Amino acid sequence: MKEIGIGVIGTAFMGKAHSIAYAAAGTVFGDGLRPRLEMLCDIDAERVRAKQAEMGFARATTDYRDVVADPAVELISICVPNAMHREIAVAALAAGKHVWCEKPMATSVAEAEAMLAAARGSDCQTLLGYNYTQNPLVRAARDLIDEGAIGRVIGFHGVYDVDNEADPERPFSWRMSREASGTGANADVMCHLVSMAHLMTGSEITRVVGDYDTVHRERRDPVDPARLRNVDNDDVCMALAHFASGIKGTLRVSRVAWGRKCGLRWEIHGAQGMICHDQERLNEIQLYTRSEDPRQQGFRTILSGQYHEPYAAFLPNAGHGLGFIDVKVCELRQLLRAIETGEPAWPAFADGIKIERVMDAIDRSALSGEWVDV
Amino acid sequence: MKEIGIGVIGTAFMGKAHSIAYAAAGTVFGDGLRPRLEMLCDIDAERVRAKQAEMGFARATTDYRDVVADPAVELISICVPNAMHREIAVAALAAGKHVWCEKPMATSVAEAEAMLAAARGSDCQTLLGYNYTQNPLVRAARDLIDEGAIGRVIGFHGVYDVDNEADPERPFSWRMSREASGTGANADVMCHLVSMAHLMTGSEITRVVGDYDTVHRERRDPVDPARLRNVDNDDVCMALAHFASGIKGTLRVSRVAWGRKCGLRWEIHGAQGMICHDQERLNEIQLYTRSEDPRQQGFRTILSGQYHEPYAAFLPNAGHGLGFIDVKVCELRQLLRAIETGEPAWPAFADGIKIERVMDAIDRSALSGEWVDV
Amino acid sequence: MKEIGIGVIGTAFMGKAHSIAYAAAGTVFGDGLRPRLEMLCDIDAERVRAKQAEMGFARATTDYRDVVADPAVELISICVPNAMHREIAVAALAAGKHVWCEKPMATSVAEAEAMLAAARGSDCQTLLGYNYTQNPLVRAARDLIDEGAIGRVIGFHGVYDVDNEADPERPFSWRMSREASGTGANADVMCHLVSMAHLMTGSEITRVVGDYDTVHRERRDPVDPARLRNVDNDDVCMALAHFASGIKGTLRVSRVAWGRKCGLRWEIHGAQGMICHDQERLNEIQLYTRSEDPRQQGFRTILSGQYHEPYAAFLPNAGHGLGFIDVKVCELRQLLRAIETGEPAWPAFADGIKIERVMDAIDRSALSGEWVDV
Amino acid sequence: MKEIGIGVIGTAFMGKAHSIAYAAAGTVFGDGLRPRLEMLCDIDAERVRAKQAEMGFARATTDYRDVVADPAVELISICVPNAMHREIAVAALAAGKHVWCEKPMATSVAEAEAMLAAARGSDCQTLLGYNYTQNPLVRAARDLIDEGAIGRVIGFHGVYDVDNEADPERPFSWRMSREASGTGANADVMCHLVSMAHLMTGSEITRVVGDYDTVHRERRDPVDPARLRNVDNDDVCMALAHFASGIKGTLRVSRVAWGRKCGLRWEIHGAQGMICHDQERLNEIQLYTRSEDPRQQGFRTILSGQYHEPYAAFLPNAGHGLGFIDVKVCELRQLLRAIETGEPAWPAFADGIKIERVMDAIDRSALSGEWVDV
Repeated sequence: MKEIGIGVIGTAFMGKAHSIAYAAAGTVFGDGLRPRLEMLCDIDAERVRAKQAEMGFARATTDYRDVVADPAVELISICVPNAMHREIAVAALAAGKHVWCEKPMATSVAEAEAMLAAARGSDCQTLLGYNYTQNPLVRAARDLIDEGAIGRVIGFHGVYDVDNEADPERPFSWRMSREASGTGANADVMCHLVSMAHLMTGSEITRVVGDYDTVHRERRDPVDPARLRNVDNDDVCMALAHFASGIKGTLRVSRVAWGRKCGLRWEIHGAQGMICHDQERLNEIQLYTRSEDPRQQGFRTILSGQYHEPYAAFLPNAGHGLGFIDVKVCELRQLLRAIETGEPAWPAFADGIKIERVMDAIDRSALSGEWVDV
Repeated sequence: MKEIGIGVIGTAFMGKAHSIAYAAAGTVFGDGLRPRLEMLCDIDAERVRAKQAEMGFARATTDYRDVVADPAVELISICVPNAMHREIAVAALAAGKHVWCEKPMATSVAEAEAMLAAARGSDCQTLLGYNYTQNPLVRAARDLIDEGAIGRVIGFHGVYDVDNEADPERPFSWRMSREASGTGANADVMCHLVSMAHLMTGSEITRVVGDYDTVHRERRDPVDPARLRNVDNDDVCMALAHFASGIKGTLRVSRVAWGRKCGLRWEIHGAQGMICHDQERLNEIQLYTRSEDPRQQGFRTILSGQYHEPYAAFLPNAGHGLGFIDVKVCELRQLLRAIETGEPAWPAFADGIKIERVMDAIDRSALSGEWVDV
Repeated sequence: MKEIGIGVIGTAFMGKAHSIAYAAAGTVFGDGLRPRLEMLCDIDAERVRAKQAEMGFARATTDYRDVVADPAVELISICVPNAMHREIAVAALAAGKHVWCEKPMATSVAEAEAMLAAARGSDCQTLLGYNYTQNPLVRAARDLIDEGAIGRVIGFHGVYDVDNEADPERPFSWRMSREASGTGANADVMCHLVSMAHLMTGSEITRVVGDYDTVHRERRDPVDPARLRNVDNDDVCMALAHFASGIKGTLRVSRVAWGRKCGLRWEIHGAQGMICHDQERLNEIQLYTRSEDPRQQGFRTILSGQYHEPYAAFLPNAGHGLGFIDVKVCELRQLLRAIETGEPAWPAFADGIKIERVMDAIDRSALSGEWVDV
Repeated sequence: MKEIGIGVIGTAFMGKAHSIAYAAAGTVFGDGLRPRLEMLCDIDAERVRAKQAEMGFARATTDYRDVVADPAVELISICVPNAMHREIAVAALAAGKHVWCEKPMATSVAEAEAMLAAARGSDCQTLLGYNYTQNPLVRAARDLIDEGAIGRVIGFHGVYDVDNEADPERPFSWRMSREASGTGANADVMCHLVSMAHLMTGSEITRVVGDYDTVHRERRDPVDPARLRNVDNDDVCMALAHFASGIKGTLRVSRVAWGRKCGLRWEIHGAQGMICHDQERLNEIQLYTRSEDPRQQGFRTILSGQYHEPYAAFLPNAGHGLGFIDVKVCELRQLLRAIETGEPAWPAFADGIKIERVMDAIDRSALSGEWVDV
C-alpha cells in the first residue's frame, strides 16, 4: 500500500472523527492509499501535545501554517470553526495539499467562491464533510434510482429536525445572533438537507421561497441570567424549491424540535416508487416499488449489508450496523480514491458552493418574502 | 333512549359509512339519541331499493327533496358529490333538519358561504365529515396539549400523501381537469390536512405561500387511449403557512406518492415536547416530553385505550384497535351531542369555511407566486 | 336479502360486540343473510330492558331458555362466562339453532366434547370467537402461504403478552385461583395463540413440553387488603411444540407483561420467506420473500387494503384501517356464509376442541415436567 | 498515555475488527492504555505480510507461538477458529499475556475449563468477544434495571434469528455436521443469546428443557451437487429456562430464518416495567415504565446518546449512531480498564464457561427429551 501523509487542523469532535478515520482506513479497505498521521494542529499548545500522543501523530503544532508548509503532509483536514475555512483552505491548496474540509463550506458565498477558485487553481482534490451523503445505504439508494428502481424522479421532500436549542431555558449563545454567526438553522442544519437533495435528485435547486421562524425570541444571558438577550436569527427555516431538472420539493429544518436527535428524514418520490430515509435509523432505507400482486405490496425496510458498497469492507454480514464514524471512513475513502485517480469525489468545492448558494437564496427570500433565483 | 329520525342522501362509500354508524351508535354508546333509519336516497331507483333493504331504512327515494320534506327525518347525511353539497344543505337547513355533510364543504368559498348563511339562519346543528380529526387518540392529544403536556405550541407540520393517481398509466379523469373539478390535490387532500392543522393548533391559518406541481402532465383518454389529454390541475400542493396565534408551519399533499395509502402524518412542535401522528397507524400517537433522566428520554408510542374518550364505548381494553368506521361513529357522537345540548360540534359549517378559505388562498398564491392573506 | 333471526345471550363487552356486528352486517356486505335482532338475554332484568332499547332488539328476557325456544331465533350468540358455554350451546343446538360462541370453548375438554357431540348431532353451524384469526390481512397471509409465497412452512413462533394483571398491587381475583378458574394465562391467553398457530400452519399441535410461572405469588384480598391471598395459577405459560405436519414451534403467553396491551405477535417461518404479525398493529403484516437483487431485500410492511377480502366491503381504499369490531363483522360473515352454504366456517366446534386439547396438554406437561402428547 | 503492546492472531473478519479497535482506542478515549500494534499472525505467509502493512503492525508471523513469546506483546487477540481457542489461550496465559478471545469460548465444556484454569493460574485479564453485550445502550439498560426502573426482574425472553443458512439451495458445509462442528445453531447463535440473558438478568440459567429442529435435512454436496448430504445438527434450537434468581424465560435461535440479518431480540420483564432490544436497531431500546396518566403511557424509543457511557467518547450528540465496530471499541475499553485496575471485565473466562454450560445442557436436554440441570 502506498502511503499518504496527513495533517489535521482542529482537535474537537470533527478533528477526532477525522483522526479515527485516518487510523482505520488502511485496515478497513486494505488497498488504495494508507494514511500516515504526520502533524496535528490546535491553537492550544497543551491540548495539542496531549492529543498528539493519544491520536498517534508524529508531530504537533499550534500554527496551521506549519501543517500547510510541512513537506510530509499531502492531505489536510480542516476541522476548525467555519470562519477559518477560507483562509486555511486557500493556503493549503496553494501549497499543493489536498483538502478535506468540514461543512458548511464557509460563512458566505464570497468566501466559498474564493475557496473554489483556489481549488480550480490547483491540481488538488477537495471534499466537504457532508457525511450523511456518504452512507453506503444512501449511495446504494442513489444507484437504485439511477437504475430506474423508482422510475423518473418527481419530487424531493426533506426535514432535518434537532433539539439542540429546544430548551427555552438554554442561555443565549453567539449562534443565536445574526451578527455573530449569520443565519441560524439555515446555516447549521439546512446545508445537510440541501446536500442530500442535490445528491438524491442528481439535480440542483434553482429557485426557492423561504420563511424563518424564531420561536424562542429571548434567552437569558449566560453570564447575567437576569438579562434577556434578543435571538435574531432563525430557529426554524422552511422553503419550497424548484430544481434544475424541473421537479419541485420542500425543505424544512429546526434546531428547536424536541425529541429529534438527528432527525434528517427525506423522501424521494418517483413515477414508479418511493425511497425514504431517516438518519436516526441510518442502517435502514424504505423502498416502495410497484408489485404485481397488490396483496403483497408495501414499503420494504432494507438493512445495510455487504451488497451496499463499501459495507463489506467493514462487516461481512448485513444487519450488524455501521455507525457515524464508519460513514466518516467511507467519506475518506471517496477522497483517497479521488486523489489516486484524479476523478473528483462528491461533494467537492465545486459542488459545495451550489449548496451555499441555496442557503443564501433561502435567506434572501425569507427576508424579502419573494421567490428568488439561486 | 330518545330516538332521532335519519335520512341519508347518497349510497356510495360515505353513504354506507354513515349508515353503519347510525346503526351502531345506540349500541355503542347506550345513551343520548338513538338513530332511527327513516329514508335513504339515491338517484338510481334500482340501487336505492336494494340498498334500502340491505341497510334497513324504512323508506327510499330517488329525490333528495323527499328526504328534506319528510317530517320523520330530523338529521340528514349529505354523501353525494361536492357540487351538490350547497343545494342540499341549504334546503335541509331551511327545512329545519340537522346536517352531517361530507368533506370538503363545497366546491367554492362562495358556496360554502351560502351554506354557512343557511346554518346561521336555522336552529340546526351541522358537522363536516373531517373524520381524522375525530379519532379519540387525536382528541386526547388535543387535550394533552391544552393541559400543557408539550408546552406552548410553536409549530405545525403536516403531510398527506396518497397514491390514488400515482400510476402514470391511469387514464385521464374529470378529477384531473381544473375546469371540471377545480384544484386537484389541493381540493381533495389538502382539506384534511388543514382541518388537522386547525384542530391541533387551536388556531387558524391566516397567510400562505403555495406552490403546485403537475408531475404527470399527460394521460391517456379513458375511451381512446391513443389520445393524450392534458392534466391541468395539481398532483402535488405545497405551502408555507402563518397562523393567527403567531406560529408558522408547513403543509404538503400529493395524490401521486407511491406507497402512501392514507399517509396523513403531522407533527405538532411545542416548547416542551412534541406529538406526532400517522393516520396509517391510527391507533398510535408519538409523544415526546422532557425527561428528568436523559438516559430514559424518547418518543413514547401510545396505543389507543379506554382512557382515550370514547374508546371505552367500543372496547374495554387498550390495544384492540379502532378502525375508520369506529371513528365515523365517534364523529356521529359529536353531532348527536350537539343536537342534544345545542353546543356546536367541531368542525361545524362555521369552522369548515375557514378550511375552504385556506385552500382558496393556497390556490391564489400558487397561481400568483406571492404570499397571500387567507 | 334473506333475513335470519338473532338471539344474543350476554350483554357485556362481547354481547355488545356481537350486537354491533349483527346491526352492521347487512349494510357492510349487501348480500347474504341479513340479521334481524330478535331477542336479547341477560340475567339482570333491568339491564336487559335498557340494553334491548339501546341495541334495538325486538324482545328481551332474563332466561336463556326463552331464546333457545323462540321460533323466530335461528342463530344464537353465547357471550356469557365460560362455565355456561356447554349448557347453552348444547340446548341451542338441540333446538336447531346455529351457535356463535365466544372463546375459549369451555372450561374443560370434557365440556368441549359434549358441545362437539351436540353440534355433530345437529344440522347446525357453529363458530368460536377467535376473532384475531378472522382479520382479513391474516387470512390473506394464510392464502399467500397456501400459494407458496414463503415456500414450505418450517416453523411457527408466537407470543401473546398482555398487562391486565401486571400491577402487583392489583388485588386477588377468582381468575388467580386454580380452583375457581382453572389455569391462568394458559386458559385466558394461550387459546388465542393456539388458534393462530393452527390456522397459520394449516396443521395441529400434537406434542408439547410446557412450563408455568407465577411471578406475583401473593396478592391482597380485595375486601380485606391486610390479608394476603395465594395466587396458584399461571401468570406466564410457555411451551415448545411439535405439529402434525412435522414442524416445530414455540408458544409463550403472559398476563403480567407491562406495556403489552394486546401483544399477540407471531412469525411463520418458511423455506423461502417469512410472515410476521403484531395484533397491536392489526392493519399491518410483515412479509419477507427472496429478492433477485440483494440490495433491495427487506421485510415489506403491507397495509390492509381492498385486495384483502373482505376489506373492500368496509372501505374502498387501503390504509384507512379496520378495527377490532370490523373484524368481528368479518367473523360473523364467515358464520352467515356457513349457514347459507352448509360448508363449516373455521374454527367450528370440531376445530375448537383441538385448541382445548393443546391447552390441556400444556397443563399436564407443566405439572409433570415431561413432554406429553396432545 | 501509557502504551500496551498488542498481538493479533487471525486476520479474517474478527482479526480485522480487533485491529481497527486497537487503532482507534487511544484517539476515542484519550486516556487509559494506548494500544501499540506489535505483531500480527496468520498461517498464510503471503496474507500476513500484506495485512501487516495494511493494518500497521510492526511485525508479522505465521506461528502463533511467536506472538505468545514476544516480550513486547502484552495483550493477545485470539481471532481464529474455535477449535484453536484452548491451545492459544492456555499458551498466552502461561506466558503472562492478557487475552481477548472471540466467542464462543471453546468447542466443549472441557476445553473451556482448561482455559479457565489457565486464567486462574495467571495474573492476567481475559475477555470474551460477546460484543452485543458491550453496546453502551445495553449497558445503560442494565444500569436502569439495577436502579429499579422496571422493578424486580420477572422474566427474560430472547430470540436470535439469522438467515445465513436459510436458503435450501446452499450447499452442505462442515457447519452442518455434528461430527465436524458439534451443534449447529446452538453453538453458533445461542451463545450470544445466553450471554445477553446472563447480563440482563444479573443471574444464570440453571435448568433447561431444549429442543432441536433440522428443517433442511439434506443439502447438495458443494463439489458434487448430484450427491445429497445429511444435515445432522440443529438449524433451530429452542429452550425453556429457569434462572438461579428464581425467574423463568425462553430462548430460541435459528440459522434458517429468512429476512433476519442479525435478529437478536430480547425482552426483560419487570414487576414495574419492561425493556426490549433489537440488535438490528442497535441504537434503540424500548422502555416501558408505569405512567401516572394512562393517556400518556407507552413504550419509549430511546436513542443512543452521550448520556449512555461511553457514547460521548465517540460522538457528542445523541442520534448519530454507533456501529458494530464502535461497540467492539467499547469492548476493548472494558478489557483495557480491567488490565489497568485488576478488576475483571465481563464476560471473562469465568463468566464464559457458564454460557458454555448452558449450551451443553440444552444439547443434553434436546437429545434426551428431559429437563436437565446446567
